[in-house]
Amino acid sequence: MWKNELTTLFNINYPIIQAPMAGGPTTSELVAAVSNAGGLGVIAAGYLSPMQLRNQISQVRKLTDKPFGINVFVPANYTADTSKLRKANDLLKPMWEEFQIIEVPVLPTFEQDLDIFEQQINIIMEENIQICSFTFGIPSQEMVTKFKKNSSFLIGTATTVQEAIMIEKAGMDAVVVQGAEAGGHRGTFIGKENQSHIGLMSLIPQAADVISLPLIAAGGIMDGRGIMAARCLGAHAVQMGTAFLVCDESGANTLHKEAIMKASEDQMVLTKAFSGKLARGLHNRFIEEMKPYDEVLPAYPLQNELTKGIRKASAAARSIEYMSLWSGQSPRLAKPLTVRELMNKIIGEAENLHQRL
Amino acid sequence: MWKNELTTLFNINYPIIQAPMAGGPTTSELVAAVSNAGGLGVIAAGYLSPMQLRNQISQVRKLTDKPFGINVFVPANYTADTSKLRKANDLLKPMWEEFQIIEVPVLPTFEQDLDIFEQQINIIMEENIQICSFTFGIPSQEMVTKFKKNSSFLIGTATTVQEAIMIEKAGMDAVVVQGAEAGGHRGTFIGKENQSHIGLMSLIPQAADVISLPLIAAGGIMDGRGIMAARCLGAHAVQMGTAFLVCDESGANTLHKEAIMKASEDQMVLTKAFSGKLARGLHNRFIEEMKPYDEVLPAYPLQNELTKGIRKASAAARSIEYMSLWSGQSPRLAKPLTVRELMNKIIGEAENLHQRL
Repeated sequence: MWKNELTTLFNINYPIIQAPMAGGPTTSELVAAVSNAGGLGVIAAGYLSPMQLRNQISQVRKLTDKPFGINVFVPANYTADTSKLRKANDLLKPMWEEFQIIEVPVLPTFEQDLDIFEQQINIIMEENIQICSFTFGIPSQEMVTKFKKNSSFLIGTATTVQEAIMIEKAGMDAVVVQGAEAGGHRGTFIGKENQSHIGLMSLIPQAADVISLPLIAAGGIMDGRGIMAARCLGAHAVQMGTAFLVCDESGANTLHKEAIMKASEDQMVLTKAFSGKLARGLHNRFIEEMKPYDEVLPAYPLQNELTKGIRKASAAARSIEYMSLWSGQSPRLAKPLTVRELMNKIIGEAENLHQRL
Repeated sequence: MWKNELTTLFNINYPIIQAPMAGGPTTSELVAAVSNAGGLGVIAAGYLSPMQLRNQISQVRKLTDKPFGINVFVPANYTADTSKLRKANDLLKPMWEEFQIIEVPVLPTFEQDLDIFEQQINIIMEENIQICSFTFGIPSQEMVTKFKKNSSFLIGTATTVQEAIMIEKAGMDAVVVQGAEAGGHRGTFIGKENQSHIGLMSLIPQAADVISLPLIAAGGIMDGRGIMAARCLGAHAVQMGTAFLVCDESGANTLHKEAIMKASEDQMVLTKAFSGKLARGLHNRFIEEMKPYDEVLPAYPLQNELTKGIRKASAAARSIEYMSLWSGQSPRLAKPLTVRELMNKIIGEAENLHQRL
């Protein structure tokens, strides 16, 4: 029951992809464990320097001889709006003082982001990584052509049918459809950020009707029921974030894992407070305090850099109140297992359900 | 494949329930057609006077001898905040003038709403309607007991797991879990209205794990794929609104039906502009104009009464810009069919999918 176009393309046993979770959770151990268990592990290159990326590729290769992928963030242009930055500084200053943060945040520029992105892509090609996924945009036609010459598989990320259509037109090979349920950053890259929260029950079938590429469903899927449901709706595979984030091999802070496992679905809110870009995570004091200013914060990734020290200091102080506790809308389904245990569990659940249907 | 606890309880052939759509779409023809096709039609008593309700029951009975249900709105206390009302009046005045509306809106009171609700319940009992569903709250323990003596089946509506738990504790018989995808009013009755938009991919399995009552999934489901997916996730039945709203038998304005069939999923936004209560529908000029004031409008049902004339006048002027165009997040799946054609289509799709899985 598990073989399909996409598992064949990726040469994996199960259509289960580990969502690239940038900023800590996606250790080499996690990526390798998912691939070793028959799914597809994915390195989250988003916030990695070229050097870190090269190191992680080599680490993962030591831990598995199975296929794995790499996810990159496509940089979108932004400018440092002085008045927004001043306002954000004013808002964050009390927290910097409270946590005694003396490091001054170093703000990136779009040109630097582009440069890092290109270096990441060069490394992915040099290292001959066959599966590359993109978030926050579509790579240039030139880049797609270059990858194609290398017979790589390219995966785009869409939050609406229109975005999925653009990804297909760009010549990519598969589309992650990110439902409103998903944790972490919204992948929205066109249209209104606030009108791109489509539940998977709606998004998958509507995308499947107009897209001929294989679809990978992401958002709230954490067990065999979700996998079978995604399949019924027209997806070829699922991408799971929160389910893997709470696993033993994940590098997420223990406080983050524990907070998810104690939470309910209605506590997972959308906020721009941490990064300037909309993302879903557990409601806490930082989100509450920044709420009135959500629409006037500096753009991503500026706000992300500004809050970095606070998030780190909060974790160091063993407080979840100023950490970004990304999670999808299914925290009640989170289980503290090893990747292998989780994979066995969900595969077994899906197979049982398949028989009982 | 279609028989389960709930179809047996309701004595229906297919676990497909027509969502009660108050305010026009739910004609007697629609209710009867769904029941005659083997599903469960449901009268939307929400805005009906006791007399209208009694008439509709008798009309439906002339059109079908199959079981059907009735949905009522549980009144929640509200007060007429003078400053909010004045503000809303100021905002709406230009529209009243534009449409030359001279009727002064008559504002209801909570006491009147309660009185109508009790009359509706009395009629439902007198008429011996066996299936009664509730939105916006839970009926009193006294009312539940009275229904139970009558061996009626009571259905509650939940948007979070916590609400579902409360419905189970109240002694009801089934729970509609309304996903974030759903069109029309949010059924939220506890907690924060803005934190109760849970996608069905997350809501169904998390509710199924803690609720032993049969679950009815509502939100974005419009075809056989959705029915099978809901079933995989743990639902016993589906409740479909938009899918039936565009059917021939529905009393929705033709402009409303056509607007849905031309729309995309990202145009279906949440707004309080029409009624003071959050609801999902097609973005239009009225929603855009009222957007800055969404949080300061008079409570439901006051704002609903205030905007009634404008909505009516907009429809009469053949303009969709000031109508409430409720729809779920799957407008691309909407098909202009008769109820019988739609039911045959989705049952066939589900059976095919079941075999191919």
